[in-house]
Amino acid sequence: MPVAEKPVLLLTCGDPAGIGPEVVVKAWAATPAHSRARLRVVADTDMLTDVLAERAGLPRLPIETIGPDDPRDSTSDKLLVIGPQPRRAGTATGVETTSTRVEAGVISAVGGASAAAAVEAAARLIREGFARGLVTGPLHKAALHAAGIDAPGHTEMLARACGLPDSAVSMMLWLPLHDEAAEPAGLGVVHVTLHESLSHAVARLTTEGIVQAGTRLAGLLAPLLGRRPRIAVAALNPHGGESGLFGDEEVRLIAPAVRRLTDAGIDATGPLPADTLFLRASRGEFDGVVAQYHDQGHIPIKLLGMHRAVNITLGLPLVRTSVAHGTAFDIVGTGAADPASMLAAIDAAVRLMDAGWPSHTVSTAAAASETGRGCR
Amino acid sequence: MPVAEKPVLLLTCGDPAGIGPEVVVKAWAATPAHSRARLRVVADTDMLTDVLAERAGLPRLPIETIGPDDPRDSTSDKLLVIGPQPRRAGTATGVETTSTRVEAGVISAVGGASAAAAVEAAARLIREGFARGLVTGPLHKAALHAAGIDAPGHTEMLARACGLPDSAVSMMLWLPLHDEAAEPAGLGVVHVTLHESLSHAVARLTTEGIVQAGTRLAGLLAPLLGRRPRIAVAALNPHGGESGLFGDEEVRLIAPAVRRLTDAGIDATGPLPADTLFLRASRGEFDGVVAQYHDQGHIPIKLLGMHRAVNITLGLPLVRTSVAHGTAFDIVGTGAADPASMLAAIDAAVRLMDAGWPSHTVSTAAAASETGRGCR
Repeated sequence: MPVAEKPVLLLTCGDPAGIGPEVVVKAWAATPAHSRARLRVVADTDMLTDVLAERAGLPRLPIETIGPDDPRDSTSDKLLVIGPQPRRAGTATGVETTSTRVEAGVISAVGGASAAAAVEAAARLIREGFARGLVTGPLHKAALHAAGIDAPGHTEMLARACGLPDSAVSMMLWLPLHDEAAEPAGLGVVHVTLHESLSHAVARLTTEGIVQAGTRLAGLLAPLLGRRPRIAVAALNPHGGESGLFGDEEVRLIAPAVRRLTDAGIDATGPLPADTLFLRASRGEFDGVVAQYHDQGHIPIKLLGMHRAVNITLGLPLVRTSVAHGTAFDIVGTGAADPASMLAAIDAAVRLMDAGWPSHTVSTAAAASETGRGCR
Repeated sequence: MPVAEKPVLLLTCGDPAGIGPEVVVKAWAATPAHSRARLRVVADTDMLTDVLAERAGLPRLPIETIGPDDPRDSTSDKLLVIGPQPRRAGTATGVETTSTRVEAGVISAVGGASAAAAVEAAARLIREGFARGLVTGPLHKAALHAAGIDAPGHTEMLARACGLPDSAVSMMLWLPLHDEAAEPAGLGVVHVTLHESLSHAVARLTTEGIVQAGTRLAGLLAPLLGRRPRIAVAALNPHGGESGLFGDEEVRLIAPAVRRLTDAGIDATGPLPADTLFLRASRGEFDGVVAQYHDQGHIPIKLLGMHRAVNITLGLPLVRTSVAHGTAFDIVGTGAADPASMLAAIDAAVRLMDAGWPSHTVSTAAAASETGRGCR
């Protein structure tokens, strides 16, 4: 077997008015991932230089702009930047973004357009074979909106760039529970329902949806952990429904889903009462949890360690991870931005690239490409 | 003003087959509360002596049985026990409980009957004016059931002993965030809905119910903390409904409830997205949270520190706190039982007795007493 070339991993800063550039630079200087991947920041070099010069508490790294086919390894002491094609007035967004002036902590069209341009350039680089994965910094919805971009976030922008409907893409929240350099361990959460009212979420719950979420969760945790993951499926009702006394969804929908997951060879347990399940999972009893609704997964993940949580996108023909925090406009430039989430996002992306993930999605995308539905 | 006599606080062990006796003895030896209250354990002395002799890792305290009117102070080096009237076959439960044999870690009618007898004796002692408050150890529903007692738990047993319907009584979960001897700080949670299916809970949510929960929460936190508490009201839907995009309960039900709480002079904020709210509260931004449903409050409290959480009962004409953990049959006798929750429950009870709580409930109960509805 030939020695595999180190894969190229792209980083974007998200909205340059937020803490994205700061956590990217801090993580670049601190991550051990340079030994396993060739890292590049996708950004407008002039803007990034200006932004970083204004921010306190950062490692002062030289910045070198390189071409997409530059083969060199990345190192912790110099930022390697691939510049996106600058957008000009008259493009789809209609916003003039050749300006490099971004005011820290302020929502602006320039910031939103810059974030969008970087992620679109990164998707193009991956489509053209220059890179295998992407880690994105935090963007701000209102800034995207100000830039005339109607996607609510990165995930939808990437889905569209790959010719996929928004619904084809979902995410796993990933919380590493130990140092990212150690044997991987952590807690992954995939939601059955997400951005909808709780009453809709409860009404929409199906065995099929739970099976799909559990299958995706197991399919992502396996390459991330390098072993068969232990999956727990959360109950919907208090005390897991207390044998039907507090609701029948456990008996009617969730238990059959767990049986189907088990029949498919997945190490799945449940339904388990949600209030003790996350405590048990955080102590290492499970690697992943299928959460039935948004807050059921988000309340514990945020309490357990929001600052180091990672979003991993499922359903794209590429590896894409993201910080789970926002732009934190209130602390931009103070030096307080914690790069833990960016470090964990880089670590997860490298593990997934090493494991050849998402092979099944890549083949799906290849087929789609033949009919004109590949990444554009 | 005359110097107030130290109030009497009763402790029960819950099911003697569980860790209750162990955490009571450990807490008795460690609590600083003897300087502020006169503590007594309500238990069958013979049974308690036998049980404690079998358990490892406990402080070996002498046990003295005293009468209910014994005025002496309690001290950390000797257990003072008031014995309940022994129940005999032919009582309401129909169970012979003069046996003192209890097998550690095993569900039994003897254990359930013993727990019930202790709490009923304690309620009687409070009704007769011998004590002001009660701290209960954990019991086991199946053991109660085996003893022929149909109440699901302490709270309902106490409500019935006071002639109140189960619905008149509710609870606050209380999590002290610092050492119990220091300036009191922590997180209180009152639920708007609790033991019902999530779909029922969502459908049953009313402005009135939220106002009632917020009022109870503020009314209990004020005497516990000795100051005006800062209350947060959780949203129901993800992202707090995102301005109506993910559900309208925030706009339709919760915001009007927060306005009514504020109009009533309560420092209330909300609706706030639940996934970040508990993180903010745990960092000291709020003293209490109104949770809209069971798991919304229980997931974070259990993650933040189940081993020291306390239940405080609202609506009874007495001070009653309880450990929030169970009988932990799996670790009985190993010495591993952590008394943190019992210590916190004692601390909370003493604070509430010192503050004269629940004065309004006492007056309500006095009125009820005139019509024959007082504690029996």
